[in-house]
Amino acid sequence: VNHPVRKIGVLGGGQLARMLAIKGHELGFEMHVLSREASDPAAQVVRMHHVGNPDNPSDLIAFLNRVDVATFESEFLDSQRLIKAADSAQKTVFPLPGLMGELQDRLSQKQLLGKYRLPTLPFTAVSSLPEASAFWREHQGGIVLKKRRFGYDGYGTYHVRKESDLQAAFAKSGAEFFIAEPRVTFKRELAVTLVREKSGAIITFPLVETRQVNSRCFWVKGPVRHRKFSQILLQLKRFVRGIDYVGAIAFELFDLGNNLVINEIAPRVHNSAHYSLDALSLDQFSAHILAVAGRPLPKPQAWSKGFAMVNLLGKSSNAPRLVTPEGVCLHWYGKNENRPGRKMGHLNALAESAEVALQRALKAEKKFTL
Amino acid sequence: VNHPVRKIGVLGGGQLARMLAIKGHELGFEMHVLSREASDPAAQVVRMHHVGNPDNPSDLIAFLNRVDVATFESEFLDSQRLIKAADSAQKTVFPLPGLMGELQDRLSQKQLLGKYRLPTLPFTAVSSLPEASAFWREHQGGIVLKKRRFGYDGYGTYHVRKESDLQAAFAKSGAEFFIAEPRVTFKRELAVTLVREKSGAIITFPLVETRQVNSRCFWVKGPVRHRKFSQILLQLKRFVRGIDYVGAIAFELFDLGNNLVINEIAPRVHNSAHYSLDALSLDQFSAHILAVAGRPLPKPQAWSKGFAMVNLLGKSSNAPRLVTPEGVCLHWYGKNENRPGRKMGHLNALAESAEVALQRALKAEKKFTL
Repeated sequence: VNHPVRKIGVLGGGQLARMLAIKGHELGFEMHVLSREASDPAAQVVRMHHVGNPDNPSDLIAFLNRVDVATFESEFLDSQRLIKAADSAQKTVFPLPGLMGELQDRLSQKQLLGKYRLPTLPFTAVSSLPEASAFWREHQGGIVLKKRRFGYDGYGTYHVRKESDLQAAFAKSGAEFFIAEPRVTFKRELAVTLVREKSGAIITFPLVETRQVNSRCFWVKGPVRHRKFSQILLQLKRFVRGIDYVGAIAFELFDLGNNLVINEIAPRVHNSAHYSLDALSLDQFSAHILAVAGRPLPKPQAWSKGFAMVNLLGKSSNAPRLVTPEGVCLHWYGKNENRPGRKMGHLNALAESAEVALQRALKAEKKFTL
Repeated sequence: VNHPVRKIGVLGGGQLARMLAIKGHELGFEMHVLSREASDPAAQVVRMHHVGNPDNPSDLIAFLNRVDVATFESEFLDSQRLIKAADSAQKTVFPLPGLMGELQDRLSQKQLLGKYRLPTLPFTAVSSLPEASAFWREHQGGIVLKKRRFGYDGYGTYHVRKESDLQAAFAKSGAEFFIAEPRVTFKRELAVTLVREKSGAIITFPLVETRQVNSRCFWVKGPVRHRKFSQILLQLKRFVRGIDYVGAIAFELFDLGNNLVINEIAPRVHNSAHYSLDALSLDQFSAHILAVAGRPLPKPQAWSKGFAMVNLLGKSSNAPRLVTPEGVCLHWYGKNENRPGRKMGHLNALAESAEVALQRALKAEKKFTL
């Protein structure tokens, strides 16, 4: 294929890297993966798998030398090492590693959102128990402590309902750097993914509702509406333009009824947009790859009035038994160990409404032995 | 994954093997590919690529020893060698190699269809110029000579409009074993794919219209109707049951107006059902893999009222320039050389009607520089 960018590297070997690789191939790119194990989900679906650690400078440089451009599946890489490796190999990583570093820390992420006047919950940085206690006393409805870095799927998030929960959080986490937010009662959680081209154009995926169970995404349905969405979307676009973001970025939102506030940002492809693999003319993985490769992005079109995604979460450590129920599309990640709560795969369904699609996917999920 | 069948081998490394591998992974299987070159389309999308010749007995046995069950992307393998290799490795190949051998020869294919009283064009076996001349004299509307084996995409097919074309066909083909059929004027060409489970259940994909240009499939649209289809479908089901077929099988049909006749059979996944990757809840590749693995098949549901597929056929030997038009899904095969007429990839579109989907896909195809 005659393109300036043909070989795309993905740092990391999990399910997001796997879906990036599968879709990248279908778009005509040569997909490379850097991850630690040959049995990693993404390693199974590429010929060009490189065994190595995405946080190791020499592994990174060797890998970047093999590709035209690179991206990552997790924002928790060491941004300084990645910047240095990219300089050394004279290759670009999108989204830019400096931006990844700024967004991977919940404090600088909040500060950046503040700079663009995006609505978030009030927060404070907390680096000691007395600081946390002070914030707790101001918010008698309860507070949430979130580790500044490396938190995901509820790991590193502590709900403080009574004062003794504070000590427990500090003891349990082993960390001292948190942001603290008041606990809020939201009507539902929403999410939206934007993808920005190198040339600056932005495409928007549908607004969806997401449901977490035990702090892990269980299902997503869409499209949904919120009367403040068009207003916040303008602000989100100004934000991604302002930080010169390239690639897919997911915004998790709290629906507070009359208001929408941003809960958090993931500078990557995201579980809340996995439905797009089957429900749209352009999925988030293809869109991210195109953006990273400097190619123009077509607008995604929905094939149906409603769609839903249900995660297949591990419920044991036994080998899962997969089934193939009618009317849903299975995306299995090929993880070599099952664990309670682990994301093992997902199901997508399309239907005449979001709710019908969700019911179909939930019914199908029950047939799996996980 | 806890399944009796987990590792699936695909003999051959072209685009059909590639799409089988991509979809097999998403269903949770470990996909293995045996093909000659590391740069083959299917070799790029699997970790488990084995370099070898699917017609070489020792390569075959070594490969079959690595997998639980195997299938093939082309019916033109040496069936006797495959039967022996499968016996030696004590592995099963689906569809059964003996059946592949019987269907790969147009003469025994026609005879098998005749045995099940399936409607075909009248034909005769021809192994010399005088035999061909005799058939020509009976059919003054012209005849078609088709090499008994290894013909595809118009290769090995000779249209005889005047007597001198006969000598030309024998000279050009280098072959002497043909079947001869009368030339017919058909309204359109249709196709349908059936997939049969090991347990015997059969699923049917939608009836589609296919358009050939220079004997190569250019587009497919569907679903379409024909008043004789339900009748012939019953016969096709009786046929696949009768021969105890397992996997996907494609039937190409001539629409003669009041009648439908079977043009030919492909005992494998087929270009005429590539639309299913995006248009249905179950695609032909997933269905074939499930059948080969002995798993039950869900019924395919269409996501839209109409769909279409347009092949991206090479037009030069230059490296292609790919684009990403709106509203279509690109499936690129990663072939390392472009050639006029070569199948390089395809586009799928969904719309409120087959015709609207086709027009959208055709418009998108024009934007590619192939």
